[in-house]
Amino acid sequence: MNDRFLKACRAEPVDRTPVWFMRQAGRYMPEYQAIRAKYSILDVCKTPELAAEVTLQPIQRFPLDAAIIFADILLPLEAMGLPLAFVEGKGPVIRSPVRSERDVARLAAVTGDAFLYADQAVRHAKQALAGRVPLIGFAGAPFTLASYAIEGGSSRDYFLTKRLMFTRPDLWRILLSKLANVVVEYLRVQIRAGAQAVQLFDSWVGCLSPRDYEEYVLPHTQHIFASLKGEGVPLIYFGTGTAALLKWMRKAGSDVIGLDWRVQLDEAWQTIGYDLAVQGNLDPMVLCAPTREIERRVKDILRQAGGRPGHIFNLGHGVLPSTPIDAVAATIEYVHRFGTLDRTSILA
Amino acid sequence: MNDRFLKACRAEPVDRTPVWFMRQAGRYMPEYQAIRAKYSILDVCKTPELAAEVTLQPIQRFPLDAAIIFADILLPLEAMGLPLAFVEGKGPVIRSPVRSERDVARLAAVTGDAFLYADQAVRHAKQALAGRVPLIGFAGAPFTLASYAIEGGSSRDYFLTKRLMFTRPDLWRILLSKLANVVVEYLRVQIRAGAQAVQLFDSWVGCLSPRDYEEYVLPHTQHIFASLKGEGVPLIYFGTGTAALLKWMRKAGSDVIGLDWRVQLDEAWQTIGYDLAVQGNLDPMVLCAPTREIERRVKDILRQAGGRPGHIFNLGHGVLPSTPIDAVAATIEYVHRFGTLDRTSILA
Repeated sequence: MNDRFLKACRAEPVDRTPVWFMRQAGRYMPEYQAIRAKYSILDVCKTPELAAEVTLQPIQRFPLDAAIIFADILLPLEAMGLPLAFVEGKGPVIRSPVRSERDVARLAAVTGDAFLYADQAVRHAKQALAGRVPLIGFAGAPFTLASYAIEGGSSRDYFLTKRLMFTRPDLWRILLSKLANVVVEYLRVQIRAGAQAVQLFDSWVGCLSPRDYEEYVLPHTQHIFASLKGEGVPLIYFGTGTAALLKWMRKAGSDVIGLDWRVQLDEAWQTIGYDLAVQGNLDPMVLCAPTREIERRVKDILRQAGGRPGHIFNLGHGVLPSTPIDAVAATIEYVHRFGTLDRTSILA
Repeated sequence: MNDRFLKACRAEPVDRTPVWFMRQAGRYMPEYQAIRAKYSILDVCKTPELAAEVTLQPIQRFPLDAAIIFADILLPLEAMGLPLAFVEGKGPVIRSPVRSERDVARLAAVTGDAFLYADQAVRHAKQALAGRVPLIGFAGAPFTLASYAIEGGSSRDYFLTKRLMFTRPDLWRILLSKLANVVVEYLRVQIRAGAQAVQLFDSWVGCLSPRDYEEYVLPHTQHIFASLKGEGVPLIYFGTGTAALLKWMRKAGSDVIGLDWRVQLDEAWQTIGYDLAVQGNLDPMVLCAPTREIERRVKDILRQAGGRPGHIFNLGHGVLPSTPIDAVAATIEYVHRFGTLDRTSILA
C-alpha cells in the first residue's frame, strides 16, 4: 500500500509529500455529477455501494495518496433527530433548529448502531480500494455541528450560536457534550469498519476569539480525541480562519492539524510545534488560476514545509465546484515532483 | 477638548482608555431608525445636515471619546461611476460590477471635487460637536472596495475577486491603483474639512493569504498612507480575520492598527510592535450577553493592553443592529472605570 499519507500523519519521513484534497470527490468531476443527477447527497451517503463508488472516483482519476469516505459533516446531527435538507445554492438546511432547553433535551444520544450505513460504506470503499491508498473517515466537530444546529444552516456571523454560548453557557455545555459523544460513536464506527485515519472538521471555529475557543470548545474536542486515542489511527483536526487559535487547537489532542491558506505554513507549524504533523494549505481558488501560478504557489508551500517530516499537502478548504479537472491533476503532479526530500530544485 | 483618543493614537499616556465603536451611529438606536425611516443611507450621507445629525446621535447619548462621520465605506466607488443600492438584508449592491478590462478603464479617476458632500458633512459635524470629542473620517480600503466592485456586493468566498487577482494581475494592479488614488482624494477632503483622524476599512482583507496580501494589496495601502502622512492626523488601518496578516499590515504605514476579536490583543500588539497603537477588540456579539459577561470581557481586554500607552478600546467590528442600548452604555462605563493607569483592580 502507498503509506506516505499515514507515515506523514505520524511525522515519519516519506519519499514524496503525500497529497489529498478535501472534497476531492465533488461537483468539479463529471462522473460525480452523473451520480448526483440520479441521487441526492443523503442517498449517496446512505447507500454503501454509491458512497464507495463516489469515494473511489478521484482515486481512479488522479494519483492521490489518500481516499476520504464520501459523507457529510452533518450526519451526526441527522442521527440525533435533526433532519437535513440540501438546498441548491444555500447548502445544508436544518428545518427545526436547536435554540431552547427543550430542543437540546430532545437531541438523541445515539450510539454506533445509528451509523450502520457508515460502517457499510467504509467497508465497501475499503474493499474497492483494495489497499491502493489509505481511507480517511471524518465528522463535523462539536462547535461546527452546533453552529449548523442552532443557526439552521450556514451563517455569516454565527449570531444565534454565540448568543446561546454567551447567555446560556450551561445549556451550551450540555449541547456540546451531547454532540461530542455522538461524534465519538460515529468516528469509532468508521475506524472499526476500516478507516485508517479520521479528520474532525471544525470548519467554522475560526469565528471565535481564542478565549472563547479555550473556554467553550476545547474541552469538547479534547474529549473526542482522548476517546479515540486508543483506536490507534491518526487523528486530524481541521478548521478555517484559525491563525490565532492554533496554539489552543494543538491542545485538543490530534496528531495532525489542518491549516487553511490564511496562515503561512512555516509560521503556523512553528506555533503548533514540530511534534505534530500539519496538513495544507493552498487557497482552493488558486486552482482556478493559470498553471504557472499553481506551480509557483505549490512550490512556495513545499519550501515553507522545508522537507521536514510530517507535512501532508492539501488545500486550505474543499475543492470548489468550478475547479478545472486539469488544475487538480497539475497540482498533484507539482506536489509529487517538487515535494521530494531534496528540495534544492525549489529553493531558487 | 477630550483628546484621549488622539493621544492614544499617538501612543501617548492618557488618564483613561478612550473608547468609540464602529457603527456607533446605527440601527440599534431608535433616534437613528427615526431618521432612516424618512431617508435612505445615501440621502443621509449626502445631506450634510443629516450626516452631522446622525454622527452626533451617539455622542449625545453616551460618553464616547470620539465621533465618526456618518458615511459608507463604498462612497468612493459611487464617485467613480458605480451606483450603489442598499438592499434590505443583503447590504450594498453594485448593479454593474467590474469584471473586464473595459470595466476597469471606465472607472473615473475623480478628484476631491467629487466629494463636496463629504467636505460639507464633516464641517457640519465638527461645528455641531463644538470640540467635545475628535471627529474621525474614513473610507474603504482598495482591496475591500475592489471586492464589492467585482463581486457586485458582499461575498462569502471572494471567488471573482481572487480570480481576477490570480488570472489578471496586470488588470488587478490598475484597478487597485485607481481605487487607492480616489481613496486618497476622499480622505484628504475629510481631513481638510476638519477630520482629526482617518480610518481605512479593509474589512474583508482577511480572506487573503499573507503572501497574496503582500503582493497584491500592501503596495496600494502603502501608497494611501504615504500620501496622507503629511496631513498630520493619525491614520488607522482596520481589517477583520487578519491574525496572520498583522506583520504585513504594520508595513502599510498607519499609526494605529484595528484588531478584530479573533486575536488576543496582547499577542497581536507584540506582533505589530509597541511603536504603533492598537484599537479593539471586543466581539460585537458580546454586547448581546449579560452585563456581567461584558464586564468580564472588557476587563480581559484591558488586562491584555496592560495600561501601555496606545490602546483605543473598540469592538472588533461594527455594533450589531440587535445590540441593546444599555449594553453599549455599560461597555463604555466599564472601559472608563477599569481602563485607568492603575489596573490593580482588574489584575485579580
